[in-house]
Amino acid sequence: MKLHRDYTLTEIAQLVSGEAIGEAGISSTGINEIHLVNEGDIAFVDHPKYYKPTLNSVASVIIIDQKTDCPHGKALIVHPEPFNAFNFLTQHFKKEIEQQLSPDPVIHGSAKVMPGAYIGNYVKIGERSIIHPGAVIYDHCVIGDDVTIHANTVIGSDAFYFKRRENKHDKLISVGNVVIENGVEIGSGCTIDRGSTGSTIIGEGSKLDNQVHIGHDTVIGKMCLFAAQVGIAGCVTIKDNVVMWGQVGCAANIEVGEGAVVYAQSGVAKSLNGGQTYFGSPAIDARLKMREIATISNLTRKL
Amino acid sequence: MKLHRDYTLTEIAQLVSGEAIGEAGISSTGINEIHLVNEGDIAFVDHPKYYKPTLNSVASVIIIDQKTDCPHGKALIVHPEPFNAFNFLTQHFKKEIEQQLSPDPVIHGSAKVMPGAYIGNYVKIGERSIIHPGAVIYDHCVIGDDVTIHANTVIGSDAFYFKRRENKHDKLISVGNVVIENGVEIGSGCTIDRGSTGSTIIGEGSKLDNQVHIGHDTVIGKMCLFAAQVGIAGCVTIKDNVVMWGQVGCAANIEVGEGAVVYAQSGVAKSLNGGQTYFGSPAIDARLKMREIATISNLTRKL
Amino acid sequence: MKLHRDYTLTEIAQLVSGEAIGEAGISSTGINEIHLVNEGDIAFVDHPKYYKPTLNSVASVIIIDQKTDCPHGKALIVHPEPFNAFNFLTQHFKKEIEQQLSPDPVIHGSAKVMPGAYIGNYVKIGERSIIHPGAVIYDHCVIGDDVTIHANTVIGSDAFYFKRRENKHDKLISVGNVVIENGVEIGSGCTIDRGSTGSTIIGEGSKLDNQVHIGHDTVIGKMCLFAAQVGIAGCVTIKDNVVMWGQVGCAANIEVGEGAVVYAQSGVAKSLNGGQTYFGSPAIDARLKMREIATISNLTRKL
Repeated sequence: MKLHRDYTLTEIAQLVSGEAIGEAGISSTGINEIHLVNEGDIAFVDHPKYYKPTLNSVASVIIIDQKTDCPHGKALIVHPEPFNAFNFLTQHFKKEIEQQLSPDPVIHGSAKVMPGAYIGNYVKIGERSIIHPGAVIYDHCVIGDDVTIHANTVIGSDAFYFKRRENKHDKLISVGNVVIENGVEIGSGCTIDRGSTGSTIIGEGSKLDNQVHIGHDTVIGKMCLFAAQVGIAGCVTIKDNVVMWGQVGCAANIEVGEGAVVYAQSGVAKSLNGGQTYFGSPAIDARLKMREIATISNLTRKL
Repeated sequence: MKLHRDYTLTEIAQLVSGEAIGEAGISSTGINEIHLVNEGDIAFVDHPKYYKPTLNSVASVIIIDQKTDCPHGKALIVHPEPFNAFNFLTQHFKKEIEQQLSPDPVIHGSAKVMPGAYIGNYVKIGERSIIHPGAVIYDHCVIGDDVTIHANTVIGSDAFYFKRRENKHDKLISVGNVVIENGVEIGSGCTIDRGSTGSTIIGEGSKLDNQVHIGHDTVIGKMCLFAAQVGIAGCVTIKDNVVMWGQVGCAANIEVGEGAVVYAQSGVAKSLNGGQTYFGSPAIDARLKMREIATISNLTRKL
Repeated sequence: MKLHRDYTLTEIAQLVSGEAIGEAGISSTGINEIHLVNEGDIAFVDHPKYYKPTLNSVASVIIIDQKTDCPHGKALIVHPEPFNAFNFLTQHFKKEIEQQLSPDPVIHGSAKVMPGAYIGNYVKIGERSIIHPGAVIYDHCVIGDDVTIHANTVIGSDAFYFKRRENKHDKLISVGNVVIENGVEIGSGCTIDRGSTGSTIIGEGSKLDNQVHIGHDTVIGKMCLFAAQVGIAGCVTIKDNVVMWGQVGCAANIEVGEGAVVYAQSGVAKSLNGGQTYFGSPAIDARLKMREIATISNLTRKL
């Protein structure tokens, strides 16, 4: 999330009542979850396992739960609960941004929003797009031109992102959105979660069949085809021209290369190279999988 | 289902025009499907295979399709179609209960029901809960405090419970409900069926991602996490702190122990012990499954 | 799709500005995608791989992208883009048909359409049927008698049928519908696509659990039972009395024989004979699959 203005380190430390360390003159221009962090961003870390990658990331200001050496050219804000502090800041900045905007959705005159569809605040809908009955577009989502969204599809529900505590789960409050690029068609009963702090993106000309699920912060390339009941977890990158057949699942934080084809019901557990065909759960090269299936079959018939 | 008052054996036999046998002075305080039966309940059985367990259950009054010896301290009602008689009784009792209640939903002033959400009769919604657009809450469901239900999720649709006849399926008419306990979050596009005669329960602090399906009379414990597109059949018991990754399926009438973790796309066909990690369809110990996958891979590459 | 009147070859050639070859006196009575073609129909072909089956089909008039020998008793219309010409014709005929009809849905007085349900134009709903809140019925769909459609289910969204071009996907515009026969019950959150030019059909007395997906032009027989999250692709034929357990997937263009039973999470990749039980992805005879599972297990434990 881009901030609406630059914030000084002192301002941020005061907002969360934390202790600032390091480059005092640094200013923040954005805030993002670590997977999406850009230069100038505020990020957070609350587990020693992730100290090193977070401190070495391009983040400029890091909210951290323990005093530690601050890398050169960055600043730390020490806070007992970085997760909560981060939630507080994203909510704060979001409100400030919203105060400068009109909440009315901007729907092009040539677009068609059918009865029973729900369009949230700050939503944009482009030319000639059609939103079918019962579709729900949450606040801040952006729908391009020539997009079709079929009935009862949900665009922009919250990221499934929780931190386990003793007796409850704390939620990372989503402040991102979904961007549907031009020429996309999305079937009925799909669910596409918004980014935690950034955008979940469906690339130009991609087509999703019914009951497809796309997790938060996932970026789908251009001209992809996803058959029905495909489920893609959060923080996944799918390159252009990828084909996923029905009921394929894809684990979080991985990348699928350009032009990859994944056969039905496969489970993509690791990143896949482009230009190849995959099958199985976990998904491997499709021809190898076919040979494995033949191996088992032959062995069984011999017994 | 608890009855609104005690019923004598004679009253019940008359309601369904059946023949009463056994303990004439017995009174009924509830009516339940055999999986959920309590002392004082009316139950039914219409297949010789299930005579013994039903007659030996804690049910007080059993509607049965054949004259048989009545166990001590119980009563039987002989009826040519126990399934139909049971449907008749649950409908009758439900109407009597509803006549004593106001149908208006009771929604706490701090709860937020968004436009396009549908709230059925006799529904209760607790403090600070949010029902997003397009969500549908069927009659009699109970939503606790601090619950979030995302867009187009359905709470309380009918149990998928049919009896096959010659040329049709007779439906066990659902009279139960869904109870969503405090602090639960349910994603978009989920479907949670109500109990046939009891309650489907989502335990305190549990979080469900998008497009999760929960069958009738299933009880989910506290602090569980279910990723997207998980499907749990009816009459399942999931204990506390269970984690199910994406697209996991779980067969009917089984139990998953506390703290079990089930990897993505697994199919849980039998009850699982708690505290362990599972993978595969059918799901087995995850490390063993990984070894099986290696076995096949090694054998195939050798050939 | 039946045309509202017979069309001469010249009329059709003029509508799409194509060149007519062959039986000049032939008249067209319908238009259909090649999978569904009947005598008297207009069809199209735009890939040499499919020339032969299309030319040998019962189609009377074939729109083709290359001049070729016209089979006896048929006619060809040569057009540089048969796909686009076909779309133009179906849209043209559909408009002509609609001009002769009243768009108002015909809903029987004993049917119940609940608040928040959306009923499209030209829809028919039979006696005693119930459409729950949030269900969406697209234009031209036909719902029989004693049908129950649960909340947020979508009947009649577009076929997932695209032709890949250099930088975009062209869509085969759906002009078919969905026909739900008498006594069908469909759970919540289901999606049933309409036929491309014909009807997707759910046969009498069949019952679908929640989150079931049925593709375009698929025909489901009578008295079938599909558990939750089953996904059936397009152009599939499922005969009577078939049982599919939860999360089963079924590939396009295949047939499943009468009375077949498919266990949970199976993937049906080829046509299946009736009267047998199947398991696995890809699905094979269930007992054989169980033996395969035992083979792997035994081999792994030995190592």
